[in-house]
Amino acid sequence: MQRHLDQELSNLKQKLLTMASNAESVVINAVKALVERNDALAMDVKAKDSIVDQLELEVDEMAVHLLAMAPLASDLRFIIVASKIAQNLERVADEATTIARRTLELNQAAPLKPYVDIPRMAELGIDMLRTALDAFVNRQPEKARAVIPRDKEVDAIHKQLQRELLTFMMENPKNISSCLNVMVISKSLERIADHATNIAEEIVYLCEAEDIRHGGKAR
Amino acid sequence: MQRHLDQELSNLKQKLLTMASNAESVVINAVKALVERNDALAMDVKAKDSIVDQLELEVDEMAVHLLAMAPLASDLRFIIVASKIAQNLERVADEATTIARRTLELNQAAPLKPYVDIPRMAELGIDMLRTALDAFVNRQPEKARAVIPRDKEVDAIHKQLQRELLTFMMENPKNISSCLNVMVISKSLERIADHATNIAEEIVYLCEAEDIRHGGKAR
Repeated sequence: MQRHLDQELSNLKQKLLTMASNAESVVINAVKALVERNDALAMDVKAKDSIVDQLELEVDEMAVHLLAMAPLASDLRFIIVASKIAQNLERVADEATTIARRTLELNQAAPLKPYVDIPRMAELGIDMLRTALDAFVNRQPEKARAVIPRDKEVDAIHKQLQRELLTFMMENPKNISSCLNVMVISKSLERIADHATNIAEEIVYLCEAEDIRHGGKAR
Repeated sequence: MQRHLDQELSNLKQKLLTMASNAESVVINAVKALVERNDALAMDVKAKDSIVDQLELEVDEMAVHLLAMAPLASDLRFIIVASKIAQNLERVADEATTIARRTLELNQAAPLKPYVDIPRMAELGIDMLRTALDAFVNRQPEKARAVIPRDKEVDAIHKQLQRELLTFMMENPKNISSCLNVMVISKSLERIADHATNIAEEIVYLCEAEDIRHGGKAR
């Protein structure tokens, strides 16, 4: 019985990893579509959102099914955490859709200037996601914990970019529309890093049964 | 045993309602602080964010504890849904903090113009939240289902307000900073309505064991 449950828990983990890899690839492609002004790629990102949505539903169905047969507190915690990770991954993919939508608008206007901060933020966010998922697969709470402070790095780039864009808008009011689109994209990337942080916190909780969300205020 | 479990499930529900009422009151006060240019009230909203954070942790602790003793699929589903509702309510309170933070910035600049759409959006969002929670308490899936299409109403006001603010920014570049703050507040209110919609969808799922999230794409 426990043997069979282990197999099912491992299937659940596999489903989450598939979800993560889909979420990651839509983010990468959304930023690529922006940098390369590629409408077809942006439209592809929008079309793929439903795959991640579907996977979230499947994770939850597996979770409810597995809860009924899981006897150990650690299994129950794993299943709850799986459901929360799925919710965060689904939102990562939603943010990719937002980026793709804004990219399509940006591609209709004249190019602003080469993007430097945006790909950098995307790279950081993706790396945070990957590291958190690695920590999940290998049950490494320290690795997951190390992801959390990196959110501040993405926040800092986001804030600086917002300030730059604000100055740019004031100097060239005709660029306001395009700058707003870039601001929204920057915010989406900042949120992707937030989701990676949430996932890392859930993994620490899973491994250490210690709730460090909200800065451990509850302790 | 089942008797004792029922009592604990009812405590869990009570905790969620306390959380909902706290989330609701921070949103109401954040918008009040904006309209009345009241810094003290905005700071109070920011300070109260930790109460909702703490309640989310308590809901999850209760959920893990209860999962271990819940034998019925319907109880398991209730507990999973409770945890997801808590996550959405926590984010509603986060959005209230964002509104409060932007309000403090707006209060340092000259007033823009009387706010009409913002209180309207807040009213709609709060009403959606209240209706969803009512449907939860009284197990009324039809009532929860009726909340979902109302999200479009809030989206429409948000989009129109973004357009108005864009025009306003182009006409008066010195107002760009303030307009951006109002745009962020409008987006926060739009997200609050999204969270109310998510909660309503979870309640329909709970009552009907039918997953209608993502527009029922999976069915």
